[in-house]
Amino acid sequence: MIRAAIIGYGNLGRSVERVIADQPDMELVGVFSRRDSLDTDAKVLPAADVDEHADDVDVLFICLGSATDVPEQAPELAKLYTTVDTYDNHRDIPRHREAMDAAARAGDQVAVISTGWDPGFFSLNRVYGAAVLPGADQMTFWGPGLSQGHSDAVRRVPGVKKGVQYTKPNPDAIAAVKRGEGGDLDAKKCHIRHCYIVADEADQDAIREAIVTMPDYFVGYETIVDFISDAEFERDHQGMPHGGNVVTQGRAGTSRHVIEFGLELERNPDFTAAVQVAYGRAAHRLREAGERGARTVLEIAPYLLSQTPLDELIKNDV
Amino acid sequence: MIRAAIIGYGNLGRSVERVIADQPDMELVGVFSRRDSLDTDAKVLPAADVDEHADDVDVLFICLGSATDVPEQAPELAKLYTTVDTYDNHRDIPRHREAMDAAARAGDQVAVISTGWDPGFFSLNRVYGAAVLPGADQMTFWGPGLSQGHSDAVRRVPGVKKGVQYTKPNPDAIAAVKRGEGGDLDAKKCHIRHCYIVADEADQDAIREAIVTMPDYFVGYETIVDFISDAEFERDHQGMPHGGNVVTQGRAGTSRHVIEFGLELERNPDFTAAVQVAYGRAAHRLREAGERGARTVLEIAPYLLSQTPLDELIKNDV
Repeated sequence: MIRAAIIGYGNLGRSVERVIADQPDMELVGVFSRRDSLDTDAKVLPAADVDEHADDVDVLFICLGSATDVPEQAPELAKLYTTVDTYDNHRDIPRHREAMDAAARAGDQVAVISTGWDPGFFSLNRVYGAAVLPGADQMTFWGPGLSQGHSDAVRRVPGVKKGVQYTKPNPDAIAAVKRGEGGDLDAKKCHIRHCYIVADEADQDAIREAIVTMPDYFVGYETIVDFISDAEFERDHQGMPHGGNVVTQGRAGTSRHVIEFGLELERNPDFTAAVQVAYGRAAHRLREAGERGARTVLEIAPYLLSQTPLDELIKNDV
Repeated sequence: MIRAAIIGYGNLGRSVERVIADQPDMELVGVFSRRDSLDTDAKVLPAADVDEHADDVDVLFICLGSATDVPEQAPELAKLYTTVDTYDNHRDIPRHREAMDAAARAGDQVAVISTGWDPGFFSLNRVYGAAVLPGADQMTFWGPGLSQGHSDAVRRVPGVKKGVQYTKPNPDAIAAVKRGEGGDLDAKKCHIRHCYIVADEADQDAIREAIVTMPDYFVGYETIVDFISDAEFERDHQGMPHGGNVVTQGRAGTSRHVIEFGLELERNPDFTAAVQVAYGRAAHRLREAGERGARTVLEIAPYLLSQTPLDELIKNDV
């Protein structure tokens, strides 16, 4: 059994706890938290004592926020534990990797970084696609998915009682990339911003105008503003759906080919956790095999994620 | 530069030759063939002299037939060269791996086996999908694609002047798997067989009847028989399109998720070659790193396929 622990108990940490419970080869030792009590049956361990449990844990799932907690705390954790994080600040990943690599090597550990779906499974598909179709058009589409920052912006518009914003891939843009006509597309042309708002009818025209002309957030995007009832809002817009597509279109030999990888996620943190936990298995195996230091998903052989032995995978899935 | 050679010069070998020409880090040393002259600008080397060129070649692409040539000849080649094959007899892959592993270790080489798209990229996606959603419904759909064996069978029906058969995924079956209702589906329910036939009008009813009642080939499948003109046949049905989808639907935490990987291939052997050549780069790197023996695609880290250095991939694609 792989002995797992979690640090951080927000949406992601709770999802990781549930995903671990479904793994036949993993057990949860405890959840590190700054809070005294959590709504969980798992053992709650004070975050301040994190350095006292290194001998009891094979893999520590870092479920802290990417904004400040991961950059500040993850390297210290990587000195003590084999870790897996979902650090998703794309521009900062090379720096994070360097910090985690130094820490993990100093502590004789493995640190698997930036798992999840983007970064994570989407990264894999960008690299696989471009490797086999060099020079291809490649585009990543996000959604349909709830955008937290844009939903906050919409809710600040005067007159808005409740509001959410979903980002959706523009189907015309996906079709263009598949036809090999994606050359001049950018993120704005690839996505539609769809808002669902609860507001009095008298305010609706002004709200729509305020949203579609909001700089940075909505200007330049195809933006749809739909007004719905409070009951519809409560019924249909409480979830955290997300997903997207990586589309690669290019030539091999004399012909053209389309590779598409798509995700439809009912609840974003659950799927992120599912990927993180599978890479936890890989992290433990890498360390057992004598490897040390930081690894991205690009550096990890696929079979290491699976609970099924390699020989069985080769027999049944290759 | 990675020095490459090809053995076998059918559709796949010709595609590999063209794909190698597009790689900035590979050069083609020559093509081994039993024939004296080939329609190529590459150097043609007698297949009988294959043991004389081992020092000039970093990777040998085995482009022989899976039916008998690969099982008979590949292990001997793997003693001399680092090899990549596309062996696609799924049931026999464990035996092939064992034979190639012994040969490659004896010859101090690496043998990457069963690359291409199925086995190959589809295998990767079956394993990645099942690893993150354990217990999921997973189904592989093939097509739309030209089926050589079924096209031959159709052409043997009396009165058929020209004929092709395409296998197509049944869209209802794909939708069922995504909804989590794929439990009782089998290959027959997942696929439609679509025939395009050139024949005299007087013969058409008998031909349709003969096709849809043909045991093993068509009975039990939803079969569509369309009659077209000779001109339409010549214009629309000379290619080798193929493709398909791997669909995984399952639960993580409290929610359900769909992972879908799809390929639309204009010309089947070109894409198979593109994957094979990318794994040639990986095979060479593995050998340079000191590894020996046979490897499936499941055992190879994704970045090893790419012509782009790892640091750049991490900066731009993770």
